[in-house]
Amino acid sequence: MTNAPLRIAIAGLGTVGCGTVKMMQQDATLLQQRCGRPLEIVAVSARSKNKDRGINVENIQWIDDAAALADLEVDLIVELIGGSEGIAKTLVEKALRKGISVVTANKALIAHHGFALAKLAEASNVDLRFDAAVAGGIPIIDVMQHGVAANRFERIAGILNGTGNYILTTMQKQGRDFDDVLKEAQALGYAEADPSFDVDGIDTAHKLAILAALAFGTQPNLTAMSIEGIRSISAQDMTYAAELGFTIKLLGIAERTPKGVLQRVHPCLVPHKAPIARVDGAFNAVQIEGHAVGRVLLEGQGAGEGPTASSVVSDILQVARGSQTEAFTLPAGALVPLETAPLSTLISRYYLRLSVLDETGVLADIASICAREDISVESLIQREPAEGDPAHIVMTTHETSEAAMQKALASIATLATVIKPPQMIRIQEI
Amino acid sequence: MTNAPLRIAIAGLGTVGCGTVKMMQQDATLLQQRCGRPLEIVAVSARSKNKDRGINVENIQWIDDAAALADLEVDLIVELIGGSEGIAKTLVEKALRKGISVVTANKALIAHHGFALAKLAEASNVDLRFDAAVAGGIPIIDVMQHGVAANRFERIAGILNGTGNYILTTMQKQGRDFDDVLKEAQALGYAEADPSFDVDGIDTAHKLAILAALAFGTQPNLTAMSIEGIRSISAQDMTYAAELGFTIKLLGIAERTPKGVLQRVHPCLVPHKAPIARVDGAFNAVQIEGHAVGRVLLEGQGAGEGPTASSVVSDILQVARGSQTEAFTLPAGALVPLETAPLSTLISRYYLRLSVLDETGVLADIASICAREDISVESLIQREPAEGDPAHIVMTTHETSEAAMQKALASIATLATVIKPPQMIRIQEI
Repeated sequence: MTNAPLRIAIAGLGTVGCGTVKMMQQDATLLQQRCGRPLEIVAVSARSKNKDRGINVENIQWIDDAAALADLEVDLIVELIGGSEGIAKTLVEKALRKGISVVTANKALIAHHGFALAKLAEASNVDLRFDAAVAGGIPIIDVMQHGVAANRFERIAGILNGTGNYILTTMQKQGRDFDDVLKEAQALGYAEADPSFDVDGIDTAHKLAILAALAFGTQPNLTAMSIEGIRSISAQDMTYAAELGFTIKLLGIAERTPKGVLQRVHPCLVPHKAPIARVDGAFNAVQIEGHAVGRVLLEGQGAGEGPTASSVVSDILQVARGSQTEAFTLPAGALVPLETAPLSTLISRYYLRLSVLDETGVLADIASICAREDISVESLIQREPAEGDPAHIVMTTHETSEAAMQKALASIATLATVIKPPQMIRIQEI
Repeated sequence: MTNAPLRIAIAGLGTVGCGTVKMMQQDATLLQQRCGRPLEIVAVSARSKNKDRGINVENIQWIDDAAALADLEVDLIVELIGGSEGIAKTLVEKALRKGISVVTANKALIAHHGFALAKLAEASNVDLRFDAAVAGGIPIIDVMQHGVAANRFERIAGILNGTGNYILTTMQKQGRDFDDVLKEAQALGYAEADPSFDVDGIDTAHKLAILAALAFGTQPNLTAMSIEGIRSISAQDMTYAAELGFTIKLLGIAERTPKGVLQRVHPCLVPHKAPIARVDGAFNAVQIEGHAVGRVLLEGQGAGEGPTASSVVSDILQVARGSQTEAFTLPAGALVPLETAPLSTLISRYYLRLSVLDETGVLADIASICAREDISVESLIQREPAEGDPAHIVMTTHETSEAAMQKALASIATLATVIKPPQMIRIQEI
C-alpha cells in the first residue's frame, strides 16, 4: 500500500463541502494515522469564489469549472454539488473514466445512474463511494458492504428523511396539522421553500433505491417504486393512531416477496413498541433484516454539516486505504435488473379513517363493502362528532391485499354518506 | 487482488463454529460474489470428533490439536474456542507469527492480549479481526474502523451483555427480583450455571476494553476499569426508577475526561426517553459519540448462532477481500497506553435507596450528611412502610463527584437509623 498523499479535489462548498474541508484541516494528523497516508486537498470548485464560508481555502487551487477538476493530477474527486444530471453527473463520469475515484453525497445521482457509474468505476478499477448519500451520518452503506455482508437480506426499511420526520414528530407531540408545522419548519430553515422532495417522499425514494440495490444485489431502480408523501396526514390521524398503539412515520421499505422486490415509500402506522417508532425529530434510522444477523437497527442524524461530512470523510479514508469495495456489494456485471413487485401485491394491515354523515346504516354499508372484498376488521372506533363536524369511523384491518383494499376504498368513496375521500394508512409491523 | 480460494481453518465447533460452517456452506456462491473469491474450509478442529453437530464436515480435514491448524497451508484461522489463555492464545499467536490472518470471536483474548496480538499481526502484515467479539451481530468494530472513522470520539457506551439485559428486562416487566429471574434464566438455558461473567459485569468489561481501545486509539486496558454487576438490583429499585422516569440498564461506558479515559461497567438509571433505555431482552446496543457525526446508536442481537456467525463470516469476507485494516484503527506503534481516570473523578447524578427506621430525624440526618459533602438533592420519595417492612427513602441528586458520594454513603451507612447498606445507582444521561 502506498503512503503517498491522497490528492483530493472537492466540487461544491455548501454546508457539507465546508464541513468536509474543516474536518480534514482540523484533524489532519489523526486522519493520516487512521488511513496510513496524508490527505491533501489540491483543488476546490464552487459557484462563487468570494463568498465567506468560514474555511480557509486560500492556499488551495480554485477551479471555476467543476468538470475541469477531473483534468488535474488527483486521485479522488469529492462531488458535493448535487442533482442527478448536469455538472455533477458530467464531473463524476469524467473522473471515473479517467481513473479517478469518486466520493459523493449525491443520492439523486446514485439512485438514477448508480449502475452505469458502478460499471465505469469497475472498468477503471477505482472506487465509487456514497455513504453520505443515504441517512447522513449513519454508516449504512459501509455496514451493508462489510459489517453484515455475510447475510442474505429479506428486508431493509428506514426513516430516511429528517425533514419529514421532524414534521411528523412535531405534529404528533404538539397535536398540530401538517400545513401549520411545515410553515414553521420553513420559517426556521428546517424545510425548503419547495418542500416537495422531503414531504412527497422523493428524497426517501432515492435513498431506498440505493439501499435496495445493496441489499438485493440489483441495479438501482426508481421507476417501479410506489411513492406517497405525508401531506395527507392530519393531527386527527396522529391521535387515532396513538389511541390504537401506533406512531405515524414516513418509511421507505424494500422487501423480497414471492412476486419480486417490493419497493415503497409511504406513511406507516408503526407499533409504539417498535424501536423505529421512537426515532424522533431530524434523526434517521435504518433497519436491516438479514437471515443470520436478524434485525439490526442503526440510528443517527440524517443530515447536517457534521454528520454528512463524517460520512464523506470516512469514505475518503476508505479510498485512501485502497479498500476498493464494489459500489453495490457485487461486481457490476453481477447486478441483475430489479424484478419489482407492484404495490397491488402487498399484503398488509390497514388503518382507515372515514368522515361520514351521522346516520344509521353508514357502518353497515362500509362493513358490507369490506366483507365483499374479504377484508376483516380488527378494531373500530366510532366517535360522536363535535357540533357541525362529520362523524369519524376509524378502523384497522387484519392482513389483506392492497388490491382488495383499493377496491374497497373505491366503493366506500362512492357512498353518499361518506363525505370526504377516505384516509388510508398502511400498518407496518417492524 | 487474487481470486484464488481463501483457505480457512476453523478451531472450535460450538454454536458459533457450527453456525459459521453452515453459513459458508449454504451461501458459498453469494459469499464468493461478495468477496471476489471462493471461501474454502480446509480443516476444522474441535474437542470431540464424533459428536453430531448437524453440519457436514466429513470432507474437511480433521485436526485434533487446534494449535496444529497453524502448521497447515492456510490463509486464515478462525478461532472460536474462547478463553484468554491456553489453546486459543497459543493458536492465535502461532498463526499470526506464521503470517496467517486470524478472525476470532474471543473477547477475553482480545481484551487481555489485543495489543500484543495486533503487533504480531502487523509484523506479519496479516489481518486480525474480531467483530464477533463485541455485541454479537452488531457490526460495531467495522463501524468504528470504517463507517465513522473520520471522527474524534468523546464517549462510547453500550448494553454489551444479552444475559444481563434479559434479566434486567424481565425483572422490570414482571416486577420480580434478581435471584428469582436468574434461576429461571438458568433453567431456560439463557444464563450459565456460573453466571458471574454475565451478571458481575466481566463480559461487559472485556467488550468495553476493546471498544475503548478502538475509540481512543489506545492499548486495551482492563486493569484500570471499575466493574460492578447487577446482583444488587432489586425489584423495588426498578419500581422507584420507573416512577422517577428511568430504566435500569447494565452499561459499559468509556469516555474522555479531563483526567484521562474513564472506563466503567455498572448498572445505570437511564432516562426512559433515551433510545438505549428501550433496548430490551437479549438485544445489545452500542452508542458512539463522535465530534462530527454526533450520536449514532446500533442495536441488534448480542449473541447466538446466527448473529455471531454473521459477524465471523463478514470478517472472513473482509480478509478475503484483502482489506488489511489495522486491528484497533491505528498502527500498533501508534496505540498509546491508556491514561485512565479513576472512578472517584466521575461527575454524575445518583440514585439512592435507603432502608430506614420509621423515626423522626432520619431524613434530617441524611440531608445534613449530603449537605456536608455538598451533594444537592434533586428529588425525594419517602414511603410509608408496609407492616413490618423498613421505610424507604429514595432520592436522586444533582451532579456531584463520585468521591463526595462515596464519603456520604460511608457516613450514611453508620447511622443507626439506616438499617441496611445504602443502595446507590448512578444516573446516566445518554
